Amino acid sequence: MPAQTPADTPADTPARNRRILLARRPCGVPVPDDFRQVEEAVPTAGDGEILVRNRLLSVDPAIRGWLDDKESYFPPIQLGALINAIVIGTVVESRVPGYAPGDIVTGFGGWEDYSRLTPSPIVSKLDPAPDVPLSRYLSALGPTGLTAHVGLHVIAPVRAGETVVVSAAAGAVGSIAVQIGRLRGCRVVGIAGGADKCRWLVETLGVGAAIDRHDPTPLDDALKAHCPAGIDVYFDNVGGATLDTILGHMNIGGRIATCGMIADYNAAEPYGVKNLWQLVVKRLNMRGFLTYDHEDALPAARRDLGQWVAQGALISTEEVVDGLDNTVATFLRLFTGSHSGKLLVRP
Amino acid sequence: MPAQTPADTPADTPARNRRILLARRPCGVPVPDDFRQVEEAVPTAGDGEILVRNRLLSVDPAIRGWLDDKESYFPPIQLGALINAIVIGTVVESRVPGYAPGDIVTGFGGWEDYSRLTPSPIVSKLDPAPDVPLSRYLSALGPTGLTAHVGLHVIAPVRAGETVVVSAAAGAVGSIAVQIGRLRGCRVVGIAGGADKCRWLVETLGVGAAIDRHDPTPLDDALKAHCPAGIDVYFDNVGGATLDTILGHMNIGGRIATCGMIADYNAAEPYGVKNLWQLVVKRLNMRGFLTYDHEDALPAARRDLGQWVAQGALISTEEVVDGLDNTVATFLRLFTGSHSGKLLVRP
Repeated sequence: MPAQTPADTPADTPARNRRILLARRPCGVPVPDDFRQVEEAVPTAGDGEILVRNRLLSVDPAIRGWLDDKESYFPPIQLGALINAIVIGTVVESRVPGYAPGDIVTGFGGWEDYSRLTPSPIVSKLDPAPDVPLSRYLSALGPTGLTAHVGLHVIAPVRAGETVVVSAAAGAVGSIAVQIGRLRGCRVVGIAGGADKCRWLVETLGVGAAIDRHDPTPLDDALKAHCPAGIDVYFDNVGGATLDTILGHMNIGGRIATCGMIADYNAAEPYGVKNLWQLVVKRLNMRGFLTYDHEDALPAARRDLGQWVAQGALISTEEVVDGLDNTVATFLRLFTGSHSGKLLVRP
Repeated sequence: MPAQTPADTPADTPARNRRILLARRPCGVPVPDDFRQVEEAVPTAGDGEILVRNRLLSVDPAIRGWLDDKESYFPPIQLGALINAIVIGTVVESRVPGYAPGDIVTGFGGWEDYSRLTPSPIVSKLDPAPDVPLSRYLSALGPTGLTAHVGLHVIAPVRAGETVVVSAAAGAVGSIAVQIGRLRGCRVVGIAGGADKCRWLVETLGVGAAIDRHDPTPLDDALKAHCPAGIDVYFDNVGGATLDTILGHMNIGGRIATCGMIADYNAAEPYGVKNLWQLVVKRLNMRGFLTYDHEDALPAARRDLGQWVAQGALISTEEVVDGLDNTVATFLRLFTGSHSGKLLVRP
């Protein structure tokens, strides 16, 4: 399993700005030729902007959705445009009162060395603790952790003693979600691809049971074995056939937090879910969400996550890959399942 | 459109008890041979029971679900057993303190002349107003009205000015739901099968627009035309392809009350819903429900419905068919779409 790599080495300041653009829309699983890397002059900050030297770039499955020319919660990335991503960077030039060179900021930028950013609800100053690696602020202490927390507190609230299933449980959000479920006193069952990941879930993250989706046992049988009392909460990162099977195991009054549908991201046509009748049979609540819609819930979530991480009760797993040139290859690993926890690039 | 037939003629007391049993499990759309009618001696009330002469039998799409041998919110009806249904009847014999011959009761009984019932949360005394036909207590003033009310207040709450779409809008629950939406200040669009029903929805029930699903225009185009501002709340009685199309028209923060899935009731295999990704894109909440889970909400619902009906603001449409012998044929009409409002049988 990936070591936790600190990512807080001082930022260098290259003379040119490397940027990764969308060369063409992927057809199915993305390939390197869908992207194009260019090198431009380092920009300057416009009025109301800050110029940031990026120190960490987030590499998320959600970005796959933005590459398609279809309606999403975020406009599609245009052909030839920068690949958007959440970043952490150091201000090198500021034309915004209250922001000064050397400040650390986090927000919605892109896969590039330097970003021109405008402070907003999604671009703001970060005040990292001295002993916490910066990478943690894009994982358990950042959007990833907040998503897991909002999912299991606001969208599909868990109660102690309940059975919680998390798909893509070894992924960035999933690996935090399983631990939050455990910390809230639930029996947690994680679904992940591969024996190594399953072992990590049980031995390191403390899930009650892990189901290997590469195992020939049908998921239906595995759920019968590992969730004999049914499922109260399903934190869904994958959608598709997994969701369909899980619907048949939900308990009355069960809740489903629909966080992502990676099963469909690369599919020519999405999987057709047949078991929605279970919504009535079991009076289920299935709810999609975006973390930043739930501003009211974020202070409490930040407090919980901060305490859990500080106490060592919650493990934040980050793999930081060096070099902007490796960003695309790192992104493609999301779709081969060869990672656990949060993937980041230090450009 | 069906006349509103009063159903409060005095009950006769036949010497035998006709009962309709499940002869075999339907394969697809039910046919008459799936049922068997028998005649038995009139039973007597056991300890803790009342014997009721049924005066009205409810004929509901939900009964179709109970005929299959599959998990539902209610155990499947066994082969050779009575077809269950909500009834209104007059007590003819009581072995329960507080219940006396002549009392009117309503609750979960079956398609038969006489039912032995045990008072419970779902079998209770009814105190009908002298000027209200008894049939109304199985329609707007009964479970049907409560379902529409709970759906649009608890499960998928509507706000004035929103766009509400209701499928099977001319059906029992749908025809009440469209009116509740209108009374709450929403723009209501009903989907129904046939020009007559659509005209009735617009001219009599006051929906803003009706979409005829027999019309060759694809539903997608019809929704674009009639819901130019998108859909905020969908009251879903049908599931399947209609749900799939509607998902693409939902607004951010939209709510879906999953009440029934009649599209799937007779299908060999349920339709596969492909657009669930919209749950994330639009942060939708999709929730299945059973009315009687929401006891806290029922007093307010009864009060609203009673006031609206008394004021003439809400039209309750009941078609009462005479004769227990006609029950099966009446039930089968649910699947040909040849009715509007609530179908009842006076045995």
